[in-house]
Amino acid sequence: MRKAHIISIGNELLIGDTINTNASWIGRFLTEKGFFVEQVNTLPDDYALIKEFIDLSLKESDFTVVTGGLGPTHDDITKKVITDLFDDELIEIESVLNHIKDMFRKRDFDFSRSNAEQALVPKSCTVLFNDLGTAPGMWFEKKNHALAVLPGVPYEMKFLMNKRVSDKLENFFPGQDVWATRYFKTAGVPESTLSDQIVGDLSTYLNNGVQVAYLPNPGGVTIRISAEGNSKTAANEKLESLQELLYKNAGDLIYGEGRDCELAAVVGDLLNQTNKTISVAESCTGGMLSSDITDVAGSSNYMLGGVIAYANDVKIIHLGVNENDLINDGAVSKKVALQMAKGVASNMNSTIGVSTTGIAGPGGGSAEKPVGTVWMGFWIDGKSFALKAQFTNDRLINKQRTVMVVLETLRRELLGLGTYPYNLKPQQ
Amino acid sequence: MRKAHIISIGNELLIGDTINTNASWIGRFLTEKGFFVEQVNTLPDDYALIKEFIDLSLKESDFTVVTGGLGPTHDDITKKVITDLFDDELIEIESVLNHIKDMFRKRDFDFSRSNAEQALVPKSCTVLFNDLGTAPGMWFEKKNHALAVLPGVPYEMKFLMNKRVSDKLENFFPGQDVWATRYFKTAGVPESTLSDQIVGDLSTYLNNGVQVAYLPNPGGVTIRISAEGNSKTAANEKLESLQELLYKNAGDLIYGEGRDCELAAVVGDLLNQTNKTISVAESCTGGMLSSDITDVAGSSNYMLGGVIAYANDVKIIHLGVNENDLINDGAVSKKVALQMAKGVASNMNSTIGVSTTGIAGPGGGSAEKPVGTVWMGFWIDGKSFALKAQFTNDRLINKQRTVMVVLETLRRELLGLGTYPYNLKPQQ
Repeated sequence: MRKAHIISIGNELLIGDTINTNASWIGRFLTEKGFFVEQVNTLPDDYALIKEFIDLSLKESDFTVVTGGLGPTHDDITKKVITDLFDDELIEIESVLNHIKDMFRKRDFDFSRSNAEQALVPKSCTVLFNDLGTAPGMWFEKKNHALAVLPGVPYEMKFLMNKRVSDKLENFFPGQDVWATRYFKTAGVPESTLSDQIVGDLSTYLNNGVQVAYLPNPGGVTIRISAEGNSKTAANEKLESLQELLYKNAGDLIYGEGRDCELAAVVGDLLNQTNKTISVAESCTGGMLSSDITDVAGSSNYMLGGVIAYANDVKIIHLGVNENDLINDGAVSKKVALQMAKGVASNMNSTIGVSTTGIAGPGGGSAEKPVGTVWMGFWIDGKSFALKAQFTNDRLINKQRTVMVVLETLRRELLGLGTYPYNLKPQQ
Repeated sequence: MRKAHIISIGNELLIGDTINTNASWIGRFLTEKGFFVEQVNTLPDDYALIKEFIDLSLKESDFTVVTGGLGPTHDDITKKVITDLFDDELIEIESVLNHIKDMFRKRDFDFSRSNAEQALVPKSCTVLFNDLGTAPGMWFEKKNHALAVLPGVPYEMKFLMNKRVSDKLENFFPGQDVWATRYFKTAGVPESTLSDQIVGDLSTYLNNGVQVAYLPNPGGVTIRISAEGNSKTAANEKLESLQELLYKNAGDLIYGEGRDCELAAVVGDLLNQTNKTISVAESCTGGMLSSDITDVAGSSNYMLGGVIAYANDVKIIHLGVNENDLINDGAVSKKVALQMAKGVASNMNSTIGVSTTGIAGPGGGSAEKPVGTVWMGFWIDGKSFALKAQFTNDRLINKQRTVMVVLETLRRELLGLGTYPYNLKPQQ
């Protein structure tokens, strides 16, 4: 199995200003490509140290990824280190220079000398053209070793790994043992319930290099299964029976496959398939639900719009909430949630309306309605119900959980499953 | 300045299942204690590699923190490596064994031999008693070097660093210099413009242990300055003249101090101070602007609400946008942006209205209005203008940039600065 090293450069990573999410992303990427990721070394903007570690990695691994230190400022020294290490010289790449100038023109920024220097690269490298930023990636082949040098900006790094490095790796390291990995995403079920009670004992499946992991995150729990083989096909075959079992035991809970599958996109597909439109009335989530729905490309096809109703007047005037109900039951109540959902659907002329109203915190709680109390309203083609949940003391987590529960409830309703996230009970 | 190394052990960190947040937390902890954190090395559960890196760190640094690999399973080998490295032997610590048995009793778990082995530690260590878990921390003093070995579970590691390691460090490294660090946050100015043209040459300030870094992120660029001194006061004094210069050259661009200062919270404070209220009309940002505004605790004081106007009908009916202008100029236009901002302020009865309308992408672009074209409208106490920007091809980044520019524009308007993010020109 070929060895890979990741070298992350930047003082901000060492002093804890920035969490090294790049290394984790690259680690997963390379693992799936069949590499054994043996070291991640995080180093300061220090010439001698960077040189020492790259030099060692060239000797002790098959592939090295270096990220960071390619910016236009004086502390960005990665390019200098590599030029010296390879006894190379810098040359200007015209297409890169034009691209940088173009980026500045489009944004109407002033172009400075330090920006032009980003178009210089060591002569022995192949440029990995960076559509998204001003620092080009660089690819070096030295005997049996390959080296990719990438900017540290996460979305530029990911773009270059996916669009430029991926093909080069497969050409340079052909016929490598690979891993097949599948991700099954769930929402609205606790990790321990999912693993112990729903999926159950998997020990008979875990041989022949098959692995299972439950990965909890704010949006739900992802089940990852993986297996090693001398081809993608061979590795994938080992996963078939386990995947069958997962779908048999937990199929209704799996909203999608693939690490990057988003619940809002799955709900969007269901809305498209059933020819429905949606509008959103948000109080406690304050726009986060709409924002998640509209993160999906093409969402304008089914998302008509929404009302952020923070003030009571907005709830009354723009959503048709009854003023007496607001006074008697309070804004965080079943009646108001139901009226908000119906009101927004009616005002925006959508087939579905959903609403959120709750005590996001940190203030505003009471004995009867503590921080974390949330009502969610649903109006689906005339069917109306509300769910009440008790989340946490954390404002942001309360917003995120509410969004997740609303979307997962929509998914289950559109599929007619008849169950609800966290076993919440629908109330009329 | 004393050097520290962090060695993080665990395959899950290398294959990208777990992000190494421990290293970032420890990095910040040690930086504030006055250490120069020179390396973070993340290693697999590999005997030879762990031994090599700990051995090197003992020679090349003053303090080493090792986390992970202390669990009860066969792949947890950190303790074995250290026992061998120091030519030591394992002894059982009775108080630790009793604590472990006690934890198992309380949780009603079965106690096994592998759990009892967690009470064994190398003879030459001082036990760092772990109230929160079964793996004790270990402290070693070898000549001028100290080594702390801690479990990888984040809350156990943090407990041990705060309650056990902190005092030991101060005793072992008395009178050590400490660092003072300050953060200045900016938005709407590119990193290179900020560093080269606005702040300018700082070389005369960068002596006596003073450092400067520009940290770009999706929300803007943070300027970090830091200095070393034999006390917090001494270190802080070194930063005074540099901070003065920063405010002299870039004061208008600095929206706040401190690493965690949020632009939406700064704008919220200004709205509170000036007794203004705001409402938001979002098309291309789809709720993200409202969500950022309402992430701030207490935002219900000035945020009245908003309209997510994805469909043209919503723009017409709920924001009073002129249908002919929509047809003639298109939804992404100055006229529509201006009408949306005025319309939402008028409908929600707020003193300020802001709007966003643009081609978020990936589809919907044209030669005249490519993906990334965004119009932002402002209605501030009757003053009305719009800004046009050209962002990227990435949907999410376009949403984030738009939110940032709207908030930064509001900040500058509320302060009467007369400048605009990215030098955009206001249009009536």
